[in-house]
Amino acid sequence: MFKEKFSGGIISAKQFDREDIEYIIKKAKEMIELKNSNILQGKILATLFFEPSTRTRLSFESAMYRLGGSVIGFQSGDVSSIKKGESIADTIRTVENYSDCIVIRHSLEGAAILAAKFAKIPIINAGSGSGEHPTQALLDLLTINEEVGPLDGLNIGLMGDLKYGRTVHSLSILLSNFNVNVYFISPLELKMRNRDKDFLQQRQVKYKELTDYRKILNILDVLYMTRVQKERFVDSEEYERIKGFYIFQQEDLIQTKNNFRLLHPLPRITEISPDVDNSEKAIYFKQTYYGIPMRKALLAELMTD
Amino acid sequence: MFKEKFSGGIISAKQFDREDIEYIIKKAKEMIELKNSNILQGKILATLFFEPSTRTRLSFESAMYRLGGSVIGFQSGDVSSIKKGESIADTIRTVENYSDCIVIRHSLEGAAILAAKFAKIPIINAGSGSGEHPTQALLDLLTINEEVGPLDGLNIGLMGDLKYGRTVHSLSILLSNFNVNVYFISPLELKMRNRDKDFLQQRQVKYKELTDYRKILNILDVLYMTRVQKERFVDSEEYERIKGFYIFQQEDLIQTKNNFRLLHPLPRITEISPDVDNSEKAIYFKQTYYGIPMRKALLAELMTD
Amino acid sequence: MFKEKFSGGIISAKQFDREDIEYIIKKAKEMIELKNSNILQGKILATLFFEPSTRTRLSFESAMYRLGGSVIGFQSGDVSSIKKGESIADTIRTVENYSDCIVIRHSLEGAAILAAKFAKIPIINAGSGSGEHPTQALLDLLTINEEVGPLDGLNIGLMGDLKYGRTVHSLSILLSNFNVNVYFISPLELKMRNRDKDFLQQRQVKYKELTDYRKILNILDVLYMTRVQKERFVDSEEYERIKGFYIFQQEDLIQTKNNFRLLHPLPRITEISPDVDNSEKAIYFKQTYYGIPMRKALLAELMTD
Repeated sequence: MFKEKFSGGIISAKQFDREDIEYIIKKAKEMIELKNSNILQGKILATLFFEPSTRTRLSFESAMYRLGGSVIGFQSGDVSSIKKGESIADTIRTVENYSDCIVIRHSLEGAAILAAKFAKIPIINAGSGSGEHPTQALLDLLTINEEVGPLDGLNIGLMGDLKYGRTVHSLSILLSNFNVNVYFISPLELKMRNRDKDFLQQRQVKYKELTDYRKILNILDVLYMTRVQKERFVDSEEYERIKGFYIFQQEDLIQTKNNFRLLHPLPRITEISPDVDNSEKAIYFKQTYYGIPMRKALLAELMTD
Repeated sequence: MFKEKFSGGIISAKQFDREDIEYIIKKAKEMIELKNSNILQGKILATLFFEPSTRTRLSFESAMYRLGGSVIGFQSGDVSSIKKGESIADTIRTVENYSDCIVIRHSLEGAAILAAKFAKIPIINAGSGSGEHPTQALLDLLTINEEVGPLDGLNIGLMGDLKYGRTVHSLSILLSNFNVNVYFISPLELKMRNRDKDFLQQRQVKYKELTDYRKILNILDVLYMTRVQKERFVDSEEYERIKGFYIFQQEDLIQTKNNFRLLHPLPRITEISPDVDNSEKAIYFKQTYYGIPMRKALLAELMTD
Repeated sequence: MFKEKFSGGIISAKQFDREDIEYIIKKAKEMIELKNSNILQGKILATLFFEPSTRTRLSFESAMYRLGGSVIGFQSGDVSSIKKGESIADTIRTVENYSDCIVIRHSLEGAAILAAKFAKIPIINAGSGSGEHPTQALLDLLTINEEVGPLDGLNIGLMGDLKYGRTVHSLSILLSNFNVNVYFISPLELKMRNRDKDFLQQRQVKYKELTDYRKILNILDVLYMTRVQKERFVDSEEYERIKGFYIFQQEDLIQTKNNFRLLHPLPRITEISPDVDNSEKAIYFKQTYYGIPMRKALLAELMTD
């Protein structure tokens, strides 16, 4: 069922209902146990990164290799024929002849949708502008599930750049499938966009918007922080003014519950002080670890019969 | 025989006689049928791309992986020691110690010849300036063979930038081994160079030069279009003036024969209108597909005993 | 023993005593004989190159593939999250979740030490600013051992940029474990730094400093030349003035002993004239060959139980 539903790929968190999420988390947990698999031997993953990436690209590639597959691709649009003026549609209709699945990251919000429209093989959206980043959100849910517990009933704060941050867009959409209390914490200039809030309202998600995270730190089970997305600002002065708005520090941890956990999709700039890193409540590096089993699970679903 | 003749690699289309071409096309057809091969397991292909590429690099890499081999290399001269001032000869004499075959693309026309002069392992020319691109021409012939039919007797138009376009140089050389009628269609400024025409005359190829493709559209079996090579123009104003000289459109198809097929090595900029893409006469994306079996065949010949 | 001692990785030549060097050279010799190994199948090497490289990166990757493993990584800091402002420590704590060993090259001298401090998997220093490049020095010793003979008693000249050249720093440290006579040959501006000489004095290494290599050419067994490191000069005029200080030419060979051998870590710019390349005394390309067995040996030690 998952295989059929997602045969075109993973483009948006909106494709997922609760059953899909629970299924892929179960599969990802199986991948944690799995050693030395060759189930994707002979398969080729294409990773087309028009924007820089460390985590997403390397974790997809690692996941592919851990399952016995191979990888082709590029790390920057500068070295591809895009530089000669080629369209995304043409690139996709070419690369689909060389591979079994395409992972694409692009600065344009519609890039992954466009790619999926033209492709005969599955497309995975690895970040489309300030739009979405659905596989990141799936690994975030796996992390919460494994490190905090079942989602229903949790108080979850999403904090930072809620306007341009694609990971929080996809995460809030996935969370709308669960009975959670969501807190959107941001400077006024970086509030969650109306189109995203409208979607949550339709799904009757309980959410609150606020600016000062300290007010609710004692009730949160999860705080998901994000970086202010420098590359999305047109005005670099506004970026400079806002980037240091939040700095989560060791003393903030004192007010938090015992089972409180701090997540971040990384990279982190200054928004979490390094003295927080050694707390067992800080699980953002563990979070990167969960990217491997989740991506192994997704790749296996999309490329096996 | 092929193996011995090409033990130094594939540098120029001029190395190929009719027998060689028919042999490698036969081998490429066998590769279309072949699934899950490991005949190049343990072998390493080095892909040294000093100029940007999507199709050529990724299809060589895909072909290598499909045969069980591995790939090392770089996608841009900027990340290699060339940036520190190293010569091509030194790079080659180094990389030959790390790999079993080297694929090289470079902006200088003599780069592949120079590389082959110094290398003890086979070199494949994946595009040398505006000189040649022989493996592209081989996959073009495979495409025509499979999608149109035997070459002898065909009316074939090569159109666009015949001066700087390396793919048409190699293709016209390969075609000189067959009994074809060739039409060179270009703006006056981008005519086939004398040195290339002299070669065809020596081989008694029947060709005509013209500017307006519409005059012969009704007799062509194959029209092979090319992009105006922006990166070869010294004068950007001249490029801007000429780049839109030809735009093949849906209405052009009406005049063509039933078995007419439109090819393009891609990337395509504006020279073929997107409304042509869905015609069964437009086979430029299928053409990228034939790159895999042709390159699998070539790699297998060059790296197995 | 080696495995335990180096379980954190290869950061500095100072980690090695004579026994360690002899052990890893023995292992590298075994790798020369070894064909088609799969001892690192299922393992992943991460190659994080923040500075350009041809030899080091490609030879690590080739060595990894020759042992059946896989490789992820990047060839330039520009395509990673470092560009978004991420710290090395965060990058390492991420990538260690995707791989079994990390190879790092960085322009900062302390980068590899910092990486090792944060990593739970082995780190290999593949060049840290003008500091060290220990695996290059190990392959240099393997080359001398195989092509000249046992190290004790040899007269070895290190010539060129002894101030900024990281390979000569690591090599002189390794040589301090043997009973060799070392000659440091450089322009006055590029002399070996005091901190490096102090280390050799502590270890009672016999060394002399001079400027004119011709004075001792007749007694040398090995001359190890290096490139003037353009990228380390703050003042480009000073670089232009000094870069042509030494040019080793064919006529220099006349004065050398029969068993004299000329090494160079490459890339070579103008400091060795190309007419020297064909002499059997010039073994710098053979030297690149020895990079594969040495790196195979190191990777096998660090990634097998």
